[in-house]
Amino acid sequence: MTTLQVALSGREYPIFIDDQLDPVQCLIPYVAGKQVMLVSNVTVAPLYLALYHEALVRGGKQVASCILPDGERYKTHESLNTIYDALLSAGFNRDCTIVALGGGVIGDMAGFAAATYQRGVAFIQIPTTLLAQVDSSVGGKTGINHPLGKNMIGAFKQPRAVLASMNHLSTLPPRELSAGLAEVIKYALIRDEAFLVWLETHMESLSGGDSVLLAEAVARSCAHKAAIVAADEEERGERALLNLGHTFGHVIETYMGYGEWLHGEAVAAGTMLAADLSRRLGWISAADQQRIADILKRAGLPVLGPSIPVNEALKLMGHDKKVLAGKLRFILLKGVGQGVIASDIPDELLAETLRAGLSGPGRPEECSSKPFNSAAMNPLTGDTEYGS
Amino acid sequence: MTTLQVALSGREYPIFIDDQLDPVQCLIPYVAGKQVMLVSNVTVAPLYLALYHEALVRGGKQVASCILPDGERYKTHESLNTIYDALLSAGFNRDCTIVALGGGVIGDMAGFAAATYQRGVAFIQIPTTLLAQVDSSVGGKTGINHPLGKNMIGAFKQPRAVLASMNHLSTLPPRELSAGLAEVIKYALIRDEAFLVWLETHMESLSGGDSVLLAEAVARSCAHKAAIVAADEEERGERALLNLGHTFGHVIETYMGYGEWLHGEAVAAGTMLAADLSRRLGWISAADQQRIADILKRAGLPVLGPSIPVNEALKLMGHDKKVLAGKLRFILLKGVGQGVIASDIPDELLAETLRAGLSGPGRPEECSSKPFNSAAMNPLTGDTEYGS
Repeated sequence: MTTLQVALSGREYPIFIDDQLDPVQCLIPYVAGKQVMLVSNVTVAPLYLALYHEALVRGGKQVASCILPDGERYKTHESLNTIYDALLSAGFNRDCTIVALGGGVIGDMAGFAAATYQRGVAFIQIPTTLLAQVDSSVGGKTGINHPLGKNMIGAFKQPRAVLASMNHLSTLPPRELSAGLAEVIKYALIRDEAFLVWLETHMESLSGGDSVLLAEAVARSCAHKAAIVAADEEERGERALLNLGHTFGHVIETYMGYGEWLHGEAVAAGTMLAADLSRRLGWISAADQQRIADILKRAGLPVLGPSIPVNEALKLMGHDKKVLAGKLRFILLKGVGQGVIASDIPDELLAETLRAGLSGPGRPEECSSKPFNSAAMNPLTGDTEYGS
Repeated sequence: MTTLQVALSGREYPIFIDDQLDPVQCLIPYVAGKQVMLVSNVTVAPLYLALYHEALVRGGKQVASCILPDGERYKTHESLNTIYDALLSAGFNRDCTIVALGGGVIGDMAGFAAATYQRGVAFIQIPTTLLAQVDSSVGGKTGINHPLGKNMIGAFKQPRAVLASMNHLSTLPPRELSAGLAEVIKYALIRDEAFLVWLETHMESLSGGDSVLLAEAVARSCAHKAAIVAADEEERGERALLNLGHTFGHVIETYMGYGEWLHGEAVAAGTMLAADLSRRLGWISAADQQRIADILKRAGLPVLGPSIPVNEALKLMGHDKKVLAGKLRFILLKGVGQGVIASDIPDELLAETLRAGLSGPGRPEECSSKPFNSAAMNPLTGDTEYGS
């Protein structure tokens, strides 16, 4: 078992990483009080709820559960209120513990419930997707979507422990595993070229579900995220690097409606837009851009976004919460392995990137290997760019 | 102008207290960014919104406002969502500032919106009721009610500044001023008998609206609250003393429906129940109990709760968030000026107090000077107790 200690907000918590984790060792000691609410969804609960429920009951806890529908489109106030109702109906008090058992959506909602139920109760995460293990395990971001924007309502809430069981990834659909790999690749791109080389060496084994390699990828990813977040807990500076691909990705998710594109798929296409813009600025080479496209494609990820008119995309970016005082900020690359926060991007370069990158079919599965849309081709260079 | 510096969560913020406060000096320097959302209600906005709106615009800020209905019954998710909608529709970003202009309900909702909009934006409070000035100015408690319980959803959020203008109290209905005095009296009862003597000297001037005396009462109250909260920011110990009268008060508010009894009125009646229980435990004398009843009555406050069956009251206490692990905790008095946290109260004493104290008419205006309900009279002593 790998244990990664994360120190944030003056508190420290462990991320346990192994093929299978023992609840008696890794879960029960981190429960506050006697009352435990397991929050899960209709997909994950039939597979893994009983394991934790029984262990907690054997450990003398009063256990209740709240099972929500599955999917980003349910990351709403209504689902959040279902958790509140379950807590209040069960008579849970301020000393209870909320355990999130599921992917990022469940983690975000259960975490936000823990941040706000009676002004804050204890929280433990059992992420069951690769994306949740490498992303929401660290950093304390929780929240829900609002009809006018994604993740617009939320809070920072640190868990008491995170249990990342590789075993749970065995039931994950391949498309979801790929979506998680998008975030793993992101860490390599923004701060660790050696990790990118490692990923290039092992990508087929990783996307094939090798649990030893996945555990290493999770540990390295979480360590990167912890280092960044520790330096900037409330996302006022360096932490923004974690949003590589996310500003563009949010445009895709919002335009297509939450859930059509998986978050990681949108991030992958968004990462390619960021790489494209970086290349147009002269910050990375065309070969670098191709290298990034190659690793994403080997992970089974799209490298083009769906067709979205440039004006629509710009409008959608105006509501992105990463916009500071009305000024568009982008996370771009100055070389592979070095993310930067950039603003004052020339409008025309941005428009060219949007035209080039948001030009694929509507379905992410088809955006991995399509030839580059001729309408978006650079008329001066004739570049066919990364969609080759 | 009195300025009280409050240091919480490693941050420090000023409470400005004066008859009239200059927004250029006390408000604008505390605004983060350029975007300011003024949150107020239909009662307060026509009186004071223009003053702050114009000053902010003159100060170069982009100002929007969100006017909610007035009253505790609107402290709901729907009102909160109205604030979120206003923020998103105006395109407000993470560097915006939310200003609460109103009583405790507006402060709680605007503060919770500030705690959760984009995971937290800047917050300034302009409390326009005495209760909000002496209570919600300090401590950072924010939140909304849930159909299953009061203040069940919330967060801790410290403001950047608090502006307490005595001038705003001139338009407050006398009943609301009295409700604020209930909280002022509370500080005296739990930790400062000398302050009680001062209140006994000046009560008629205070309830008559003398702004110099009110400013002193606000400053002394806020200083007491700041001292307690600084020692226990997340309400795990000593801070619970601030809930004197509140556990019983919540029973009254919940049973009667939010808004029938003002919060301060319910707290006043609840304080008398706490005093009654303290006297039954032998911790204060009958004369002490009478002294407390006298000051509350002089402040125009009820000293009896409405008639509520004991079993109903006990059931309602079971959902109170101050219940720790299923055990009822009470804030009682061991002498006037010394609050204590008590548990293991004998059931029979509690029932006697509930029978005696929850026996008045349904309307708080009638609960100040009614003769004590004979059904609740102690058959052994014939005590007519505090309702005389």
